[in-house]
Amino acid sequence: MSRTIRIEKKILEANNIIAERNRKRFAEEGIMVVNIMSSPGSGKTTLLEKSIALLSDRINIGVIEGDIATDKDAVRVEEAGAKWVTQINTGGTCHLEAGMIEQAMEDMPKGLDLLIIENIGNLICPVGMDLGEEIKIMLSSITEGMDKPKKYPGIYRACKVLVVNKVDLAPMVDVDPDALVTESLEVNPQLKVFKTSARTGEGVDDWCEWLLSISKKG
Amino acid sequence: MSRTIRIEKKILEANNIIAERNRKRFAEEGIMVVNIMSSPGSGKTTLLEKSIALLSDRINIGVIEGDIATDKDAVRVEEAGAKWVTQINTGGTCHLEAGMIEQAMEDMPKGLDLLIIENIGNLICPVGMDLGEEIKIMLSSITEGMDKPKKYPGIYRACKVLVVNKVDLAPMVDVDPDALVTESLEVNPQLKVFKTSARTGEGVDDWCEWLLSISKKG
Repeated sequence: MSRTIRIEKKILEANNIIAERNRKRFAEEGIMVVNIMSSPGSGKTTLLEKSIALLSDRINIGVIEGDIATDKDAVRVEEAGAKWVTQINTGGTCHLEAGMIEQAMEDMPKGLDLLIIENIGNLICPVGMDLGEEIKIMLSSITEGMDKPKKYPGIYRACKVLVVNKVDLAPMVDVDPDALVTESLEVNPQLKVFKTSARTGEGVDDWCEWLLSISKKG
Repeated sequence: MSRTIRIEKKILEANNIIAERNRKRFAEEGIMVVNIMSSPGSGKTTLLEKSIALLSDRINIGVIEGDIATDKDAVRVEEAGAKWVTQINTGGTCHLEAGMIEQAMEDMPKGLDLLIIENIGNLICPVGMDLGEEIKIMLSSITEGMDKPKKYPGIYRACKVLVVNKVDLAPMVDVDPDALVTESLEVNPQLKVFKTSARTGEGVDDWCEWLLSISKKG
């Protein structure tokens, strides 16, 4: 391994400078930008597929997909009808950074209403990295159990919106979605909450109406 | 935030020195040590509870629990019958390090046969950190979907053992456990695989027989 000197404060400062540049560009172009975070396999991409299919004839949606490896998710959201999609492969990096977003936007077309950034599956490392987004959103899968809000409080506090996904599996895993919401609100009482099953479609309409309302055409 | 200078190579070198010290102590005391990693909410603690309940009258099991916050998991495995349990709360750190294990072992009693380290829920950051363990094990929950081996290849390659958990939910999430095993073996053909449902108990006997066989009394 080559020698790497990392000065954490400088990295965060550099990230924040680029994040502000991204934020300025988003404002100038009139794009609402959301940063979606969760554990691996919580259903982010499936929810995006369903949402884009429902919304793509009403607003122009762009997606930046973050993954360690593969372009599987980019292919899926493109097929669902996203207007513009770019896949970032970080190699081994555990979170997206503002500079990756800036680079990904090099060929971003004009006219997007909503840009969705799907972060790396990780409840910890992406939280402190400002990408220039307006709203941080987290997904929590019902199958992950009741204890995640208290065990990973940082991400619950950083987000404005919580989507409790896979609610169709609640009876099978003995987790009450409403109790999980209560646990989450104890960590962050400001959370706006949606309950969905991306697989069955339950709750996806409400979530999509909200996405539409925050997009610049909403 | 205070200024922190991080020299990655030096941190890894320092970690490895302590990991070797841990490894030497484990060998001297005749303890088998495993490091269990997974996404948040894959069922690590539930599997440990069931395993410890089945094995605690045959071998002396110690557990070191790693979490960002709370001692919920330590309480659970202690109630299940673990001989010795220590909870590490990392605050915000996304992985366990050898120095944390060394510190946790300060009051570790003699006579343990098996020490199980439950790492932070994270598929990326814990992988490169040697704790002094003999075997790295990962859990993959069937509810996380089919694409994780290819999207997070590093952890699949680092581990000797894969436990595919929550197989009782396979029909509800349209994931075939055998297909997931095939995907995993494409990334690491050396993986020893167990299929379990910690909740229903399916497959837990085989897994426990193996734990017993690797423990120094096995």
